[in-house]
Amino acid sequence: MTVEAARTLRDEDLTGLAELAAQLRVDAIRCTTMAGSGHPTSSLSAADLLAVLVARHLRYDWSYPGNPGNDHLILSKGHASPLLYAVFRATGAISEQELLETYRRSGSRLQGHPTPVLPWVDVATGSLGQGLPVGVGVALAARYLDRSPAHVWVLCGDSETAEGSVWEALDKAGHYGLDNLTTIVDVNRFGQRGPTELEWDLDTYRRRVEAFGCRAILVDGHDPAAIDEAYGQAREAGGPTVVLARTVKGKGVPEVENDPAWHGKPFDPELAERAVRALGGSRRTIRVAGPRPPAAPRATAPQTGQPELPRYTRGAAVATRDAYGDALRALGAARPDVVALDGEVSDSTRAERFAAAYPDRFFQMFIAEQQLVAAAVGMAVRGYRPFAATFAAFWSRAYDFIRMAGVSRADIALVGSHAGVEIGPDGPSQMGLEDIAALRAVPGSTVLCPADAVSCAALVAQLPDLPGVTYLRTTRGAYPVLYDDGEPFPIGGSRVVRDGGDVALLGTGVTVHLCLAAADELTREGIDARVVDVYSIKPVDRQRLVEAVRDTGGRLVVVEDHYPQGGLGSAVLETLADLGQPARVQHLAVRGLPGSGTPTQQFDRAGIGVSAIVSAARRLA
Amino acid sequence: MTVEAARTLRDEDLTGLAELAAQLRVDAIRCTTMAGSGHPTSSLSAADLLAVLVARHLRYDWSYPGNPGNDHLILSKGHASPLLYAVFRATGAISEQELLETYRRSGSRLQGHPTPVLPWVDVATGSLGQGLPVGVGVALAARYLDRSPAHVWVLCGDSETAEGSVWEALDKAGHYGLDNLTTIVDVNRFGQRGPTELEWDLDTYRRRVEAFGCRAILVDGHDPAAIDEAYGQAREAGGPTVVLARTVKGKGVPEVENDPAWHGKPFDPELAERAVRALGGSRRTIRVAGPRPPAAPRATAPQTGQPELPRYTRGAAVATRDAYGDALRALGAARPDVVALDGEVSDSTRAERFAAAYPDRFFQMFIAEQQLVAAAVGMAVRGYRPFAATFAAFWSRAYDFIRMAGVSRADIALVGSHAGVEIGPDGPSQMGLEDIAALRAVPGSTVLCPADAVSCAALVAQLPDLPGVTYLRTTRGAYPVLYDDGEPFPIGGSRVVRDGGDVALLGTGVTVHLCLAAADELTREGIDARVVDVYSIKPVDRQRLVEAVRDTGGRLVVVEDHYPQGGLGSAVLETLADLGQPARVQHLAVRGLPGSGTPTQQFDRAGIGVSAIVSAARRLA
Repeated sequence: MTVEAARTLRDEDLTGLAELAAQLRVDAIRCTTMAGSGHPTSSLSAADLLAVLVARHLRYDWSYPGNPGNDHLILSKGHASPLLYAVFRATGAISEQELLETYRRSGSRLQGHPTPVLPWVDVATGSLGQGLPVGVGVALAARYLDRSPAHVWVLCGDSETAEGSVWEALDKAGHYGLDNLTTIVDVNRFGQRGPTELEWDLDTYRRRVEAFGCRAILVDGHDPAAIDEAYGQAREAGGPTVVLARTVKGKGVPEVENDPAWHGKPFDPELAERAVRALGGSRRTIRVAGPRPPAAPRATAPQTGQPELPRYTRGAAVATRDAYGDALRALGAARPDVVALDGEVSDSTRAERFAAAYPDRFFQMFIAEQQLVAAAVGMAVRGYRPFAATFAAFWSRAYDFIRMAGVSRADIALVGSHAGVEIGPDGPSQMGLEDIAALRAVPGSTVLCPADAVSCAALVAQLPDLPGVTYLRTTRGAYPVLYDDGEPFPIGGSRVVRDGGDVALLGTGVTVHLCLAAADELTREGIDARVVDVYSIKPVDRQRLVEAVRDTGGRLVVVEDHYPQGGLGSAVLETLADLGQPARVQHLAVRGLPGSGTPTQQFDRAGIGVSAIVSAARRLA
Repeated sequence: MTVEAARTLRDEDLTGLAELAAQLRVDAIRCTTMAGSGHPTSSLSAADLLAVLVARHLRYDWSYPGNPGNDHLILSKGHASPLLYAVFRATGAISEQELLETYRRSGSRLQGHPTPVLPWVDVATGSLGQGLPVGVGVALAARYLDRSPAHVWVLCGDSETAEGSVWEALDKAGHYGLDNLTTIVDVNRFGQRGPTELEWDLDTYRRRVEAFGCRAILVDGHDPAAIDEAYGQAREAGGPTVVLARTVKGKGVPEVENDPAWHGKPFDPELAERAVRALGGSRRTIRVAGPRPPAAPRATAPQTGQPELPRYTRGAAVATRDAYGDALRALGAARPDVVALDGEVSDSTRAERFAAAYPDRFFQMFIAEQQLVAAAVGMAVRGYRPFAATFAAFWSRAYDFIRMAGVSRADIALVGSHAGVEIGPDGPSQMGLEDIAALRAVPGSTVLCPADAVSCAALVAQLPDLPGVTYLRTTRGAYPVLYDDGEPFPIGGSRVVRDGGDVALLGTGVTVHLCLAAADELTREGIDARVVDVYSIKPVDRQRLVEAVRDTGGRLVVVEDHYPQGGLGSAVLETLADLGQPARVQHLAVRGLPGSGTPTQQFDRAGIGVSAIVSAARRLA
């Protein structure tokens, strides 16, 4: 539906909004020209959209970004950071000097794309198509967990609607009836290298948005009155709204308006001067204070409850995915801030046990792993401790979102079941064999792979207090419980499950059990093998590695159900190199492409089975 | 639009189709029960859909899968492999014995999910939401490159439409008017753990499909006449068609029909016996021979042309992304099978130079990296050599697609520009710092990172003949040309760019230049440093590493513009461990999270700058 602007704004309101938008444009031009890089034209197209938003609709306490009643503003088109920072300057959050003198400079918090080093930024953006999915997570938390009046506003570019993740997000917004989410699309019809696929075909955008369960409002994105009315309607709507704003790239600077050649290019000083002069100069010091947030209780109180962890019998066969499900349910009882998310496989990951006990804190994202991670990140924004689980292999579907969660320093736990050749007959498409490599390479991440139910539960219990992105890999099959309830399993630790001085067998997850069987066989040959359970792959237990090298004369066999690149073997070798510890390492990993078979057949074919471990140990003896 | 079945089929046609469908159901049940795992109910829902397709619409020469006139059948819902393999048995492509005795067994080509070890399978499926995007690539190649009569049929599950990649694919199908693509959605309303989001709301599916530019036909998926008519209309339609088929999960076996509890569970022998009996027993030996393909020329002739590579002047500053663009254009002149794909950044990656010269072989996927990879895979299915390029960081968006391309053994080249902190002020969202770790962990992959324009062009020239997934990382900035035109740069090789025996500095890409600067400084301190350009990271040059260890007494400094995990450092350490070569390795990589800054500031802050390299070399001296 097209909204005819009611023009209920008074003339002075309109003048004020136009002045504010002009200041935002001037500041975006100035800071990019001074930095010598950045995206002025993508900022100019959206200046009116943000001017109206911050002046009249965004309920935000700029002096207290942690106010739980604050609305959220997410700049999905993160390259328009000059505009966002110009808004921050207009609110008084940052100074004109900081904007002009530090934008994009070394050490500045005003980076090329926004990150949460700024207190008014919820999440890092700049990888397109992510801000909206995260906004869905924020809105889910605000509406269903906090029952907060906070509204979530997401400013998207039009190019990024080509990302499937945008449609995963709108689908979930519609499904969950997120009336507290407004998406604003700056349809300036140009991407980086030319026209977008749909250009100014707003009607097609509208039909897509509506088919995905959201309300669409079409506006002229340079008409403050129309924008104002659309935002007002969006906030009052009974469901999620998408404001489709027809805009002009470079708006306000005739020399570059509607010209695709100007994407991502700062103006040279002469052009910048002409542009600023045409916009009324740089003397404006408009200070905008939009509506205040309503009083709202703190979203989530700090949580300190100790879970009553499940108990296991040493020697009993338990899959660590079962321990995950049980421990998560136990965490749910102790900590109301723990929430769980699923990508349609909760029966396999065992997250269903949490879902059965705490359905109000369980969110189904269907088969949309990108949205699964994004929703977790969004819930973490509002202080929750999300646990999201799917098959280990399918985290690869969301790798960019996980990468960006690392940049955002989001505190989320990701759990991957059905990893490695251990899954047996399903074949390589279902096997996570690159998950550890990928997750280790996320900034600030923690990577865990417990071998038994007790250690798995103990690790899960620690995750709500762990900063950053954590990845925990579970087993599909059941293996003997190795430890007694209550034993400590600190992050960064490891366990010697069997002592020995001739050679050390280092395993993680299922391969610990293969190492134990190999050690039995080696004993019969007179080789005394130590078995180390490296349940914490990042950080890895440096001290235990040093001891193993020292006690065995540097004879190590590392065994992992993972491709040879970037997994446990790399973690061990990188650490030994850092420590200057020479060692002779036999590295057993899955070489070649697996097919179907039983788990034991798979281990043997992959070269990580018991006999391969025995042979490797013999080679070192 | 709903199609009223015209029921033009004769009674004996209908009987034959029903019999064929019953045989497919029986075989799907039998093979899963004998294997003890698999997805019978997801096969049963789609049996009529495939029976009608293979008997009356799929033009396919089952004795010659390489026939260029053959249609393509892609099973996007790869877990329904029992149904696909039952089809293969019905066509005579495989025997009943192979189906029943090898399905899901160790060493079998009938894996749990289909892979191209089978000659009738184009691509590996099983990670949902991928078959359709790949089908778009196949259809693009057939229509725009081959002008072939081949039609592409993709069978999707309904659950997988939750993946954004499905909408990226339908959007491209509509945009490119792919009248040779028919998508069949088996809407059985159940996913793995319960109802799908839209269940049997076919009208919502229809609106989404139409909004994304495709034609929708709604049918009863168990009415052969209706299905037949829909397929006939789909083939004749002027654009891409999506057949939305309302089906019943477990159809034909009343004990499990429409019951969500039966996902992914084989029947026990007793249930299987009852079910088979109810379906008419297992004595059918229907042999189906559908329509033959029309005569069609071979899609692409083997290509052997030698490109006239761009020439560079030693010492001149050239960005390797420029060398990529120039070499790709040169390849385009020499080899008509080379095609290029873009994700809306061809001005940055320099793929635009190919686009300008060969617009008919250049495909714009807009900002949809998953579809970008899938389209490349689809074009490789038809024998083309696709080069797809985007920023290094954004390959993480398509990591699951790249993983599956590795499983498919697809021959594609992926190029990542704007990698590492080298990009300068844009900040971490734009920096590929995990790309090498991720791409190394793809089965059968090759990972290359040239330091100069000559080596970059020489590597690009080799890619069309290289099997599997290749990743090539380019530099944003311009650095001195190090080599003379025409020098050889074999895959798996490396170059000593400066000799020295006190310590070896190992770099890749931009860090080779940092190593050279450090070597100059070390010379002034009396330390004689060798600099090795490790342009091939996977495979890595083992011999050169052995020599470096031998000649320097094991003193190595490895420097990479990448996170410390899984990159060049890991490749070197893994290789030295495999070779049993003890060494003292100082590993410099990007530690911590970068922000903005100039490239030099970034190198220094990240700990990979010249002075850090000098210090590391000193520590070893």
